[in-house]
Amino acid sequence: MGNSDYHTPRGVAVPPPKPFCWAVRTALKETFFPDDPFRQFKNQPPSRKFVLGLQYLMPILEWAPRYTFQSFKSDLVAGITIASLAVPQGISYANLASLPPIVGLYSSFVPPLIYAMFGSSRDVAVGTIAVASLLLTSMIGGVVNPYENPKLYFQLAVTATFFSGVLQTALGLLRLGFIVDFLSHATIVGFMGGAATIVCLQQLKGMLGLVHFTRGTDMVSVLKSVFTQVHQWRWESAVLGCLFLFFLLLTRYFSKRKPAFFWINAMAPLMSVILGSILVYLTHAEKHGVQVIGHLKKGLNPPSLSDLAFGSPYLVTAIKTGAVTGIIALAEGIAVGRSFSMFKNYHIDGNKEMIAFGMMNIAGSCTSCYLTTGPFSRTAVNFNAGCKSAVSNIVMATAVMITLLFLTPLFHYTPLVVLSSIIIAAMLGLIDYEAAIHLWKVDKFDFVVCMSAYIGVVFVSVEIGLTIAVTMSMLRLLLSLARPRTHVLGNIPNTMTYRSIDQYPNANTVPGMLILHIDAPIYFANSNYLRERITRWIYEEEDRVKSCGEANLHYVILDMSAVGSIDTSGMSMLDEVKKDLDKRGLKLVLANPGSEVMKKLDKTEFIQNIGQEWIYLTVGEAVGACNFMLHTCKRTPPTLSMPPAVELTAQDNV
Amino acid sequence: MGNSDYHTPRGVAVPPPKPFCWAVRTALKETFFPDDPFRQFKNQPPSRKFVLGLQYLMPILEWAPRYTFQSFKSDLVAGITIASLAVPQGISYANLASLPPIVGLYSSFVPPLIYAMFGSSRDVAVGTIAVASLLLTSMIGGVVNPYENPKLYFQLAVTATFFSGVLQTALGLLRLGFIVDFLSHATIVGFMGGAATIVCLQQLKGMLGLVHFTRGTDMVSVLKSVFTQVHQWRWESAVLGCLFLFFLLLTRYFSKRKPAFFWINAMAPLMSVILGSILVYLTHAEKHGVQVIGHLKKGLNPPSLSDLAFGSPYLVTAIKTGAVTGIIALAEGIAVGRSFSMFKNYHIDGNKEMIAFGMMNIAGSCTSCYLTTGPFSRTAVNFNAGCKSAVSNIVMATAVMITLLFLTPLFHYTPLVVLSSIIIAAMLGLIDYEAAIHLWKVDKFDFVVCMSAYIGVVFVSVEIGLTIAVTMSMLRLLLSLARPRTHVLGNIPNTMTYRSIDQYPNANTVPGMLILHIDAPIYFANSNYLRERITRWIYEEEDRVKSCGEANLHYVILDMSAVGSIDTSGMSMLDEVKKDLDKRGLKLVLANPGSEVMKKLDKTEFIQNIGQEWIYLTVGEAVGACNFMLHTCKRTPPTLSMPPAVELTAQDNV
Repeated sequence: MGNSDYHTPRGVAVPPPKPFCWAVRTALKETFFPDDPFRQFKNQPPSRKFVLGLQYLMPILEWAPRYTFQSFKSDLVAGITIASLAVPQGISYANLASLPPIVGLYSSFVPPLIYAMFGSSRDVAVGTIAVASLLLTSMIGGVVNPYENPKLYFQLAVTATFFSGVLQTALGLLRLGFIVDFLSHATIVGFMGGAATIVCLQQLKGMLGLVHFTRGTDMVSVLKSVFTQVHQWRWESAVLGCLFLFFLLLTRYFSKRKPAFFWINAMAPLMSVILGSILVYLTHAEKHGVQVIGHLKKGLNPPSLSDLAFGSPYLVTAIKTGAVTGIIALAEGIAVGRSFSMFKNYHIDGNKEMIAFGMMNIAGSCTSCYLTTGPFSRTAVNFNAGCKSAVSNIVMATAVMITLLFLTPLFHYTPLVVLSSIIIAAMLGLIDYEAAIHLWKVDKFDFVVCMSAYIGVVFVSVEIGLTIAVTMSMLRLLLSLARPRTHVLGNIPNTMTYRSIDQYPNANTVPGMLILHIDAPIYFANSNYLRERITRWIYEEEDRVKSCGEANLHYVILDMSAVGSIDTSGMSMLDEVKKDLDKRGLKLVLANPGSEVMKKLDKTEFIQNIGQEWIYLTVGEAVGACNFMLHTCKRTPPTLSMPPAVELTAQDNV
Repeated sequence: MGNSDYHTPRGVAVPPPKPFCWAVRTALKETFFPDDPFRQFKNQPPSRKFVLGLQYLMPILEWAPRYTFQSFKSDLVAGITIASLAVPQGISYANLASLPPIVGLYSSFVPPLIYAMFGSSRDVAVGTIAVASLLLTSMIGGVVNPYENPKLYFQLAVTATFFSGVLQTALGLLRLGFIVDFLSHATIVGFMGGAATIVCLQQLKGMLGLVHFTRGTDMVSVLKSVFTQVHQWRWESAVLGCLFLFFLLLTRYFSKRKPAFFWINAMAPLMSVILGSILVYLTHAEKHGVQVIGHLKKGLNPPSLSDLAFGSPYLVTAIKTGAVTGIIALAEGIAVGRSFSMFKNYHIDGNKEMIAFGMMNIAGSCTSCYLTTGPFSRTAVNFNAGCKSAVSNIVMATAVMITLLFLTPLFHYTPLVVLSSIIIAAMLGLIDYEAAIHLWKVDKFDFVVCMSAYIGVVFVSVEIGLTIAVTMSMLRLLLSLARPRTHVLGNIPNTMTYRSIDQYPNANTVPGMLILHIDAPIYFANSNYLRERITRWIYEEEDRVKSCGEANLHYVILDMSAVGSIDTSGMSMLDEVKKDLDKRGLKLVLANPGSEVMKKLDKTEFIQNIGQEWIYLTVGEAVGACNFMLHTCKRTPPTLSMPPAVELTAQDNV
């Protein structure tokens, strides 16, 4: 290509116009159906579509027909293993949620059955989680005392569960699952660690055999409550608790070193419960300050539809609690399901999972259960035990059913302190200090978000900690948009490639030109900043040029490669920059505007304004053309030093 | 460069490590001082720095010493012109704010004087604005009836003004001015249009001579109030109002056609007031249903420090009103100042302007003024009248002072209906339907934001409309982050350039490779989406390849040019994509990661994980290397068709 062609560059394409409806449909599809869930429906007869639709809603219809006895054997073992964890954990977490222990068992019966029908994960084991339990105590306990008014408290808890379920189902149906993505990894690490810390501290109540205890969840009130009651501490309880905690931590240590012995860890809580109960029964320790569970009602879940307290004056609290716990439960459940599906290399649809979780919580709220999800610990045990499908959940539910029908009297002598040990052992695993160190190393801001979530949860309250962390994550996003980076580009020696001179210190700036790379979409939130920043780059470049005695500035080349999109404020900004440069006698040149940007440039007639010949496909071409102009037009002194080898060939590339 | 070099590419640089403190300082500087306001302080002796500092705080110290008599003559004319507008407008807007008319005059006396000292704009003329006045009526009037309890209402109004001032000063001092940028142009167009519509409708009260009127600001209650009182309509009032409205619109029409006659438009309100007053005085129309202003107290602003109602039970309302009106006043004032400084080619510092606006409102709140800013209409008149500096504000304040001291009795017979006409005439200019049409043409989403602001303001309330519009703008930002675009790149024939095949339909995809361009920073908010989207691109490409019988897919090249930044969630996403591709037997290749991304890749050891030889400086190099591998390793059938002229030379460019 000869130099004479520079005035009519090879043309940056305005993308072919698309019909408005098509654009809207594409945008909606990308927003709500990025994973294209209906791909398999294409080109199918209606009857097949109906079957696929049913299978889409209830994955059990899809996998049940090809379920084998071989798989069942694996699922049976896995199901019994998780049941042995589910029973003591269920009781412990119900305790944490200030609900009757039996509600914990109820919650391990109905929801797993529902999940087995609607869930698409093969590994998730359904159960209650500590954080949501703690949140119930903290949020609903804030308006209704669970010990003075247990009936109302229970009603609000199931009402909150109902709203969680409705919210989860709605998010799934409306394909708004991406809301969960706004809880960043850093937020979750900090939040979980903080919640685990608080839960551990609260277990000091059980460990020390205290009867009266604060309802606050922050560290200060919990520690105050513990240390103002030094004379109430019961050493019998404390010794028993420490023994079992040691036992549980020891089994975990062994299981971690030898993964084949994972079942030791999985069975340990049940073994602790059995050992503790026998010990108390034999020594009558319940008369010496060791509190026990006491009477548990026999029988399956009673219906609780009439307990949904839609007319309660505390309905707003129930809805708020439902929303917060529902989102957190989703975040944990979806993340867990996704992680394990990656191991086994199958795909799960986040939005479908949400519907499954929502259905199981709606059903749960009508059968005396409180919030359930797919907790990490139980799912990991299920996975390790070799589960093949959601049948392991059915096996677990059956085992819990048998417990509810026949075995509840056995828990009469189970000491509360054992439950506390089980909770502490589980929680210590959630304080992921290694992840926090990793965050510090890789991304300081993520670390700050993580620590503020942790500190907020530990020192103020669970909700405040979560709010702080989410707000900070959002602020980071908005700040990154409001203050995009701009780089000066230079020529990498012996190439036609232009890169940031900060990243490539050997890149050389081109005399007479300032090449700026803008690193983000241009929106109203950053257009003022960008205008000021571009002006400042020019000031600085002019100062530098003056002090070095280099050739004067003639061209400002904006590399738009990274500007994915631009709005009307951004267009005004470009207009103003153009005017400003014209006043200074500088020429604005654009390089590589993308399709969205070209569309806008075209519609606002900025292309005509700047002149089509000043928009180039690559920075290299723009520099070449500007150099050509500088020379033929003699606008600069002849001493101008040329950048090395800036020759345009037909092979100029990305 | 020989083909044998492809295994050790020219190296994508990890940027040189920077000290942590330096990085923090740079980030803070870019966030809070993007315009580098202290540039002039560099390398100056301390005494000079002190003088510069004083001048920075009070620009009058900088320009007053070189102020000339020549400039004063221009400023005198401009000052008198805007005073003739300020007096009737001040009274009208005070009426709109449900405050005594005299407060409008007070507000045109003290604040302009303060602004003249602290402000850096040469064109801004200070005064009250209709939207903030309406908001006062709507927000404070919502808790205290201004007619039944005028004393308390006035106290809350000055308290709100005080908090506006404090907020504005604080934003300026903390350099948080960019918060105003989050009010996008589209939001402001819709909001202003809506507010203007509502204000016009409310003037039907004055135009029709109604005595009782709704305190609601939505269209439905206003129209209901008007049409349920059909029998109270006074034709005398209506005729007078229409006459003056016609006169005002006519003068504006003439001024617009001949810019030299701008003063006709500027003087018209005062002329209307004079004519109206004389007419009423002569015809005694005040006894025939034409309401007049009545007695106005003589004398300057009384102090109102003791009226600041910090102990009031309505303090929260006052703070909220102050915050909302303060931000809106800032948005208008800053935008106006910036626009006119662009005309005259001088720079104003948004944060400094905020301090000036804040100081004038704090001072105003202590001297019986309510919220003032730099309104567009008055500033435009000032500019057209040839103002040279803030001295025109001092002239205006002096003229208002003379009015307050001696001329208030003249306003006794001024009919309210003339004030209504003045407001309507001003408001009609604010309904910027042309801007709305422009938005529709250029950016549909901006149009939706604009219309929802308009509809929200007109049919619900001013605050709700504003909230809706700001929320939608934010959602757009977040959505654009949560759903970044990904493009498939193809080779532009006869070049080594790779561009989106959507934008350049003539670009050819390269057999055996999928080249994806990611259009945004990778954050927690979009990492899940991107993983799903990349997976889908691969599915679709494999389907396409199968149906066409082309060469199998072997390489997935991610063009990272537009990925300005990545967080820890993004890094996990890349890890997962890598694992997923490995399982499918595909190779992940990165092209042109920027400095932030390279830092993170380095810290998380992803570079070692993917292999340094799979990171290339340009897409062209990556394609070249992959093609080389495909051929020498014979991983594909020999029928593979080569892309045209993909040869790497030393001149591969951006």
